[in-house]
Amino acid sequence: MVFSVTILGSSAALPTSQRFSTSQLLQAGERSYLIDCAEGTQIQFRRFHLPFGNLKAIFISHLHGDHVFGLPGLLSSLNLLDRKEPLDIFGPAPLEEWINGHLKFFAPLSYPLHIHCATCTDMTAIYEDKRITVGCFPLQHRIPTWGYLFREKERPANIRKDMIRLYGIPLREIPAIKAGADYRMPDGKIIPNHLLAFPPVQPRSYAYCSDTVYLERLPAMLRNVHLLYHEATFANDQKLRSAETFHSTAEEAATIAKAANAGKLIIGHFSTRYDNLRPLLQEAQAIFKNTEAAEDGKTFEVKQPSRPTSDHPA
Amino acid sequence: MVFSVTILGSSAALPTSQRFSTSQLLQAGERSYLIDCAEGTQIQFRRFHLPFGNLKAIFISHLHGDHVFGLPGLLSSLNLLDRKEPLDIFGPAPLEEWINGHLKFFAPLSYPLHIHCATCTDMTAIYEDKRITVGCFPLQHRIPTWGYLFREKERPANIRKDMIRLYGIPLREIPAIKAGADYRMPDGKIIPNHLLAFPPVQPRSYAYCSDTVYLERLPAMLRNVHLLYHEATFANDQKLRSAETFHSTAEEAATIAKAANAGKLIIGHFSTRYDNLRPLLQEAQAIFKNTEAAEDGKTFEVKQPSRPTSDHPA
Repeated sequence: MVFSVTILGSSAALPTSQRFSTSQLLQAGERSYLIDCAEGTQIQFRRFHLPFGNLKAIFISHLHGDHVFGLPGLLSSLNLLDRKEPLDIFGPAPLEEWINGHLKFFAPLSYPLHIHCATCTDMTAIYEDKRITVGCFPLQHRIPTWGYLFREKERPANIRKDMIRLYGIPLREIPAIKAGADYRMPDGKIIPNHLLAFPPVQPRSYAYCSDTVYLERLPAMLRNVHLLYHEATFANDQKLRSAETFHSTAEEAATIAKAANAGKLIIGHFSTRYDNLRPLLQEAQAIFKNTEAAEDGKTFEVKQPSRPTSDHPA
Repeated sequence: MVFSVTILGSSAALPTSQRFSTSQLLQAGERSYLIDCAEGTQIQFRRFHLPFGNLKAIFISHLHGDHVFGLPGLLSSLNLLDRKEPLDIFGPAPLEEWINGHLKFFAPLSYPLHIHCATCTDMTAIYEDKRITVGCFPLQHRIPTWGYLFREKERPANIRKDMIRLYGIPLREIPAIKAGADYRMPDGKIIPNHLLAFPPVQPRSYAYCSDTVYLERLPAMLRNVHLLYHEATFANDQKLRSAETFHSTAEEAATIAKAANAGKLIIGHFSTRYDNLRPLLQEAQAIFKNTEAAEDGKTFEVKQPSRPTSDHPA
C-alpha cells in the first residue's frame, strides 16, 4: 500500500512561476489527504494528475494566505464536480469563521462540509479512519499554528494462503493465526505462526511542521518519524530575519530531524530570495544527511519496511 | 504607445493545467488594468513576466469564483510587495462586502483599497485617468454581471520638433499649433498645420463581455470597437446547456462582433468539455472571420492606426 507525500507548493508567502505556495497531498493507499491549501492547489491537482475523488480530509496549519487561499477554489470545484461525500477540514480558529463568511456569498455546496477548530496545546488526536490516525500539535508562529502527525494504522498479519492449503488448516483457525497463534496439527505437530502468516504491516508515519520557529520540544513528540517535513524559509545568512518573522533556518530544520531520529527530512517553504537552494540543502545536510528539498510535483514515498522491526518504528 | 490585452486565464469555471479561469491584463502605455481575477492570477503575472507595480485598477465582471478567487492572493501579495499607491476595484455588489469580510481575517494592507460597487443599468462612466476612460454596462448572467468598455483618451497632435526648429517658431505658438492652427511667418507666409504636427492619436478601444447570454442590445453600445472579447463557453452542439447556464455559444459571440462592426473578436471562457477549440473557432469564423481563441499568455495588441481616420473609429 502506498504511503507518500506529493509537494503541491514549496514557496513561502510569494508564489513564483516555478513554486506555488504551501500545499501537500498525503496518499495512504487509495485515500488522500490535503495538508494546507495555497492558491492554485486545485490547478496542481490537474497538473500532476491527482484525482479529486479520493480526498478524505483537509488539514490546515494556520490562517495565513499562503496556506489557505486555494480553499475557496477547491471547495467550489468539488461542488462543480458534484461531490456528495462529506469533507472534513481541520485547523486553528478562526478558520471556520473565515470559510463560512466566505461561503455565504457563493452557491451552496453539493456536499456536507465539516470544519473542526478544536484547541491544540499538546499532541491531540483529531482524526481517524480505516487507514490513518492524525494528531495535531502546536507550533509557534505569528498566529496560532498547528503541525500534524500522520500515522498509518497497524494492520493484522497477512495469512499465507499457500501454507494454509498445504497444511489443510480449517477456516475457523484463521483469526487465531492472524492474531499470532501457532497451529497444532491433528497428529500433534506444531506449525509455528511465522510459517503461516506474513508479519503485521509496520505503520509508517509523516510529520508536517510549517510555519514555525525552532522548537526544542518537537523531537520528543516526533521520535522516529519515518518522514519529516520541516519548513526552512531561510538559510543561516538570514538567521535574524528568520527569528523576526517566526520562521526556521535549514540548519534548525535539520537539527530537529536529527534529534527526532527521523528517517528522512524534506525542507520547504523557501523564501523567494533563494533562486538556488544549494546553500539551504548543504546547510541542512551537514547536520542531517538524508535531507531533500521540496519541489512542486515531487513525490516522497515511504516504503513499507520488509521486516516487522525497523530502524524507525514511529 | 502600446494598447493590448494579455490573457491570463481562458477556461470557464474549472481551471485546467493549461488554462486558468478568467482574468486579463489590459495595458495602455505604461499603465495596466486587471479585468477579473481568477485563482492563480498572481501566478500568471509571474509566469508571463508582467509587472505588479503598474497596476492602476481592477475591474470585476461578477461575483462567481472563477472570476474573483485570485483577489485574496493578489491583494495580499501587493501588500507583501509593500505597495503604497491606492488601488481601485470596480464590480457589482456584493463585491465590497465579500472583500471586506475576507480582509478582516488577514493583516491590514499597506495601501488604500477603494472598492466601488455602483449600480449599472446602462453604459455608465466609472473610471478615468490620463490614459483611459472606462464604462461599465449590464450583461445578463445568473447574478448581476457587468461588461466593460475601455477607451484610450484622445491625445493632442504631436509637435514636429524638427519643423518648429526649421521655421524658428517661438514656444508661445506651440499650444495653438497643437490645437490645429497654421503658423504665419514674419514674412506673411503660411505654414500649414500638417507640416508642423503629427495628427492627433486616434483612441483605441477594447470591450469585455463575460459572462452573458446573447444580448441583442450589445452591438449598438459597442459600435466599431477595435477589439472585442466575448465569452463562448459552448459551441452550438450545447446550445441548450448554454442557455440554461446563461452563457453564449461561439456563433452568438461572432454575431455580436459582426453586428458591432468590431475590428477583431477574441472568444474565451471555454468549457472544459472542449479539448480541441477548432469547432468553436470555425463556428465563430463562419460569421466573423477575424476571430481568435483566447490562450493563456497570449497578447492581443491593437495597433495605432497610421491615419487619423480608420475603419473602426470607436
